[in-house]
Formats: sequence, C-alpha cells, structure tokens
Amino acid sequence: MAYRETEKMRQRKAEARQRIIDCTYECVARGGFRSARITRIAGLAGVATGTIYRHFDSREDLFAEVFRLATQREVDKVAEALATSDEADVRLEKALRQFAERALRGPTMAWSLIAEPVDPKVEEERLKYRKAYASLFETAIRDGIEEGCIPDQDACQSSTCLVGAIAESLVGPLSPTQAGTKPAATTDNNDMLVDTIIRFCMQGLTGTRR
Amino acid sequence: MAYRETEKMRQRKAEARQRIIDCTYECVARGGFRSARITRIAGLAGVATGTIYRHFDSREDLFAEVFRLATQREVDKVAEALATSDEADVRLEKALRQFAERALRGPTMAWSLIAEPVDPKVEEERLKYRKAYASLFETAIRDGIEEGCIPDQDACQSSTCLVGAIAESLVGPLSPTQAGTKPAATTDNNDMLVDTIIRFCMQGLTGTRR
Repeated sequence: MAYRETEKMRQRKAEARQRIIDCTYECVARGGFRSARITRIAGLAGVATGTIYRHFDSREDLFAEVFRLATQREVDKVAEALATSDEADVRLEKALRQFAERALRGPTMAWSLIAEPVDPKVEEERLKYRKAYASLFETAIRDGIEEGCIPDQDACQSSTCLVGAIAESLVGPLSPTQAGTKPAATTDNNDMLVDTIIRFCMQGLTGTRR
Repeated sequence: MAYRETEKMRQRKAEARQRIIDCTYECVARGGFRSARITRIAGLAGVATGTIYRHFDSREDLFAEVFRLATQREVDKVAEALATSDEADVRLEKALRQFAERALRGPTMAWSLIAEPVDPKVEEERLKYRKAYASLFETAIRDGIEEGCIPDQDACQSSTCLVGAIAESLVGPLSPTQAGTKPAATTDNNDMLVDTIIRFCMQGLTGTRR
C-alpha cells in the first residue's frame, strides 16, 4: 500500500510550521534576526532543529518568510490608512505618520525589517516590499494631483523619495547600537521626530511650508 | 636565522593585494558583486585563489573593502561639492545633483553600492556610509539655517531624509532587473529624473515650491 499522508498528519505539519514561524517572529521582535538562532527557535517551538529544516530549506528561507509576513502586516496598515475618504494629502500624511509611529513603538522589529544587515535573501525581500510601499504612495499621489491638493509631478519617482526619506530617517532612532548615545526614547522625543520626518516628506511632495 | 620579510617581498605582497582589489572593483563595476566570483577575480589578477585568502579572510571581507573604497570615493565627491563658497542651499543642491548624475553614469557600480543584496558585512558598511553622507549634509543644512537660506529644522533628521530620498529614488532606475521594463536610459530621461529627485529633496528642506 502506497504511503498516504492522512489529514491529521497534514494538520500536525502545518501547526509545526506555524509554530516555527511564530517563535522566529518572537525572537526577531525581541532581539533582531541576529538573535534568532535555529537552536533557540527549535527550543521555543518544541521541535528538533532537523524539523525546522524539513519545513524550510535554510535559516535564510525561514527568515525571508518571517520578513514577508511581518512586512506585509505593515504594508496592509499603510494601505488601510490610505483607504479613507479624506483628501489625498491628508491620507498620505496619516499613513506616513502611522508608519513611523508603529515603527517607534516596536523598535526592535522595525529596525530588523528596515535596516538590520541580514542576508541577501532578506535583502531581496526588502527591495520588493519597498516597491510595495512606493506603489501605494504613488496611487495616493496621483489621486492628490487629480484632486488638486498635490502639485503635478512624477508620482512614481516622488513615491520612492517618500519611502526612502521615511525609512532612512528611522534607521538611526531605531538602531540598537545607538541606544547608549542618543537621548532616551520618550514619547515627546518620538512625537518631535515623527513631526520632523512628516514635515520633510509633505514639503517634498507639496512644496508648501508646514 | 629567523625568517624576515624583505622590503621587496613586502612590496610584492602589497602589489598583489592592490591588484586583487582593482580586479574585484572591475568585476563589480561590470556586473555587480554577484558576478565577482573568486575564481574570476583570481584569473584577472593573475594569482591563485588561495592567494586571495592570504590577503582577505573571506570573499565578504574583500567585498567590504572594495565597497569602502568605492563608496569613500563618492563621499569625497559629495564633500568636495559641498566645500565651495556658494550659499548652503546651492551647495546642497549641487552636491545632490552630482551624486545622482554620477550614479546614473555608472549605474552598475552605483546599484551595487546603493542597493544590491550582498552580505551582512557589506550591509554594515552601507549603514556606516549612509551616516557619512548624512553627516556632510547635516553640516551644510546647519550652515543654511545660520545663513537664513534654509528654515530652522532638525538638521540631523533632515539630513537622513535627504540620504534616504536620493538613494531610494535611484534604486529603481539603477536596478539591472528593471532594464527591460523601463524606457531606455537616455540623457534626457536621466535629466528629468534627477530634476524630480532634487526638487523633492530641496522642497523637503526648504518648504518652497521649485
């Protein structure tokens, strides 16, 4: 009789895979990809390290999967913030602000998603997701040009400027290596930081002093 | 008699090291880090692959060294453009324009320096050099605030916005994978692209429509 995977086995496998992903996510959120060692993940997930490699070809593939899941969550949040009925410039400002605020509230994960040096496989994903953000911004910029609240411009290029400006300006504040050299991240400091970033972005888009 | 390295041997070693670096640089400039295989570099440099590992602990260390040399050249160019006697906003605009134009003239190398997914060691260098650019821009922004040609702002944060905006907006146009999907890189297209990027950056800084 040929071997056949029963429904129960399939389910058990899917659950183990999900647990491995969840535990990796937890590790990254606490200490970045650097701290997410396979032995540690296996321990947390209650599986043998070999089991992880039955689900993922390599540590890098597991990381890329966790990166995709975590980043897609942020992309969805941006899409959500852009989907209201406000004017396009207001929607853009809200989406950018929310992105920065969420990053500063979960700085370790945000640092890992935005800038932590990891592995070419994760870097490839980073490039793809930056395009996903840019594409959302581009649509809103086009709306704004049509509505007349944003001056005519190359929406595609401006959207990449937005993505770059907001991501790069968060790298320093989020960086774990700067923890000792910068003022403590208070809510006030973070508010001022977010205001500064948003001002630059919106001025860049509109050419109007904020 | 203890072994002593003669002057001539030292010189020969230094020359071999330099040749390895030069040949790696050549490979990267033609096809990115991805194409710079150790066997190929060894062939070009006329040394055995083992010789490369006597000079560099790993391929990644060699890449990081080439990255540093190539990026430092660009940082120096930005510093030079910022060192004229113009007003700060004019100097900033010139420096940003020159950075973008140089990148578009040497797109493969620029892509490799700005965005090619390589290795955590190169990514670490990327983060450091982005700070180097930001630090140059920050000084110029401070000058501009003092001169009155740039409105008062957090110069440190704005400098990172500039670095992010210009780097990210070049990623797409420089990307080798986009070669088939984008219009041919003509001088006219590049001029328009640079104008768009510079406009966003300078509007972001000054809040004045360009």
